[in-house]
Amino acid sequence: MKFVDSLKECAQENGSLVCVGLDSDIDKIPHFLKTHAKDNKEAVCKFNKAIIDETRDLVCAYKLNIAFYELLGPAGYEALKETRDYIPSRIPAIVDAKRADIGNTSRAYARALLDFYNFDGITVNPYLGYDSLEPFLNYQNKGIFILCRTSNPGSADFQDLICVHKPLYQIVAQKIAGWNQYGNVGAVVGATYPKELKEVREILGEDIPILIPGVGKQKGDLEAAVKNGTNSKSEMAIINSSRSIIFASPGVDFAQAAWAAAKKLKDEINRYR
Amino acid sequence: MKFVDSLKECAQENGSLVCVGLDSDIDKIPHFLKTHAKDNKEAVCKFNKAIIDETRDLVCAYKLNIAFYELLGPAGYEALKETRDYIPSRIPAIVDAKRADIGNTSRAYARALLDFYNFDGITVNPYLGYDSLEPFLNYQNKGIFILCRTSNPGSADFQDLICVHKPLYQIVAQKIAGWNQYGNVGAVVGATYPKELKEVREILGEDIPILIPGVGKQKGDLEAAVKNGTNSKSEMAIINSSRSIIFASPGVDFAQAAWAAAKKLKDEINRYR
Repeated sequence: MKFVDSLKECAQENGSLVCVGLDSDIDKIPHFLKTHAKDNKEAVCKFNKAIIDETRDLVCAYKLNIAFYELLGPAGYEALKETRDYIPSRIPAIVDAKRADIGNTSRAYARALLDFYNFDGITVNPYLGYDSLEPFLNYQNKGIFILCRTSNPGSADFQDLICVHKPLYQIVAQKIAGWNQYGNVGAVVGATYPKELKEVREILGEDIPILIPGVGKQKGDLEAAVKNGTNSKSEMAIINSSRSIIFASPGVDFAQAAWAAAKKLKDEINRYR
Repeated sequence: MKFVDSLKECAQENGSLVCVGLDSDIDKIPHFLKTHAKDNKEAVCKFNKAIIDETRDLVCAYKLNIAFYELLGPAGYEALKETRDYIPSRIPAIVDAKRADIGNTSRAYARALLDFYNFDGITVNPYLGYDSLEPFLNYQNKGIFILCRTSNPGSADFQDLICVHKPLYQIVAQKIAGWNQYGNVGAVVGATYPKELKEVREILGEDIPILIPGVGKQKGDLEAAVKNGTNSKSEMAIINSSRSIIFASPGVDFAQAAWAAAKKLKDEINRYR
């Protein structure tokens, strides 16, 4: 099944555009979990599984930012695999890896993250151009999310440069639309830039999903994210929140607090659809 | 000690600008090593250690592209650590990771790769702008190599776009020079683009090292790489070759063949200095 089809199915079934970001920073997960676990890997896996158990009916996708797993050394990659395998198959699992390299190296990354770890979607960086993304795009049933306008303040440094009368991020968006021959591309646009999000949605049309980070701690405008990021059917947006959901409580009720935060976000998004 | 100082010391001691890229693709390492090893991790470590033993007096640095380690699953990261720890401390060890993300995530990457794995240098991607690189740049004694003009054909897609009357890669080069407040930045420019390499060296001045991939299998112009990439003292270039050295022979003589290929490259480079 194509990524966009499983995304649509899960979004409809759960009535949600929320993506929960499992950016499970070991320094932030509840203390009691760490004292009761035999190592960091076990603590992270217990944390993630409890969050997944509570939020699985509230999301259209999960996103795992690989940095927080890499931080734990080789055992972190075991936690990545165990967490990914725990996500129900009906829910798309995206690895936020922002990879890209020359062709033979990108192939190795694609094999690692899309075959071995078996993620359904991945984020990739466009700076190296088409041939660096091609090994990912050749996975026709995966979702390949290309960074377009990222959510951080420094994104303006290059992404706003006017190139051939248009800012770079718009040229990237046009390329993304052109690279969709297999119906498997997506774009990443931060909720912190609602005007740019609207422009990118117009460039991408109806059928390309946009992964939208930045509505939580980064204080992106949620209403604009929903209205500008979805297509005419109020679909094809994947609105990610990580820290505001998974670290909603530092206590033993962390998973219930995550449920409540995800539920609140889901309902608020649906009011704007 | 600053990265550039240990780079200079090693380059002078070994009389070399060669960087050997340990892109140890499991599919390409000699068959006999795999049949005699208990697992892929052991095979890769044996391969790398033999190459390091043979080439340690011929290089100014080693570079490990992390994709080929990620490909092996969690055990690949054990091989990464074991290999990194085997590199003599007098030789700078660069991890080719091309990372960058929003601030708190880049911090996690920096801690993982510069603290836990203890690499001396790292490659990073500029697309997300300054705040995504700042967590790396704060490591004042490490070498932070920012992608500028990459060696692959698709690099033209965005890096050649004319922004404010200049191609993007030149604007990136100007930013790199401006971000050198701690004397710890470098740039990545492919040998496959000798004219651009010359322009970038002019923008960067005397004291910023350029990591130059693409002289081997990618057929970059070696003479131009040396002449255009070094500073006025014929220093500050790190000329990387991976596949042409480490896979010079598929047989039991692979390490000796790597020695011969590294020696030939070192001598050829020195003729052009």
